[in-house]
Amino acid sequence: MNSQNTSTMSVREHIGEVLRQIRRAQGSTLREVSAKAQVSLGYLSEIERGQKEASSEMLLSICTALGVPQSLVLREVSIRLAKIEHVMATSKAPQYAKALGKDEITLLS
Amino acid sequence: MNSQNTSTMSVREHIGEVLRQIRRAQGSTLREVSAKAQVSLGYLSEIERGQKEASSEMLLSICTALGVPQSLVLREVSIRLAKIEHVMATSKAPQYAKALGKDEITLLS
Repeated sequence: MNSQNTSTMSVREHIGEVLRQIRRAQGSTLREVSAKAQVSLGYLSEIERGQKEASSEMLLSICTALGVPQSLVLREVSIRLAKIEHVMATSKAPQYAKALGKDEITLLS
Repeated sequence: MNSQNTSTMSVREHIGEVLRQIRRAQGSTLREVSAKAQVSLGYLSEIERGQKEASSEMLLSICTALGVPQSLVLREVSIRLAKIEHVMATSKAPQYAKALGKDEITLLS
């Protein structure tokens, strides 16, 4: 887990943390995932530490190497951000739902 | 709505489409949002068309300019990706949940 205050974490940092968490839960090394994903070990490490942005293509490669869908990673990032942004506690949810052509926005957990 | 096949859309393209959809739903112009977000009009347009990656800082600026939380945008992107990836239809959900330290993964809509 990243030691910094989560409330100031960027999307990049959240993505890195989630990718690292999934990799570690699988017992995979940086070396294994970087080889599978065809991303350099140094770059993958920087992505996991939130120091480099992963391009969409790189994110797809890493997720494929980890065997997880991209949607899962982004979903987890959105949940972590939502907790910080207190989205569902705001009265704006109906307005956001409308903007996205939905009747309502459901709670994430 | 983007006219390309959604099944081949990258995270970048989904993010662009969601940002454009929110902007249009608000009746805002590219010019207005680019000025507020302090992102050049050309760059914002390329982000919306999925031609350029938005850095985490840029995404935050654009979301702030649109008055929507970043979590909402990423949540919507994850939902659109999940539909394509058929995540929740797979038997792997419990395994993903474990990797993320959760008991279960709930369905998004």
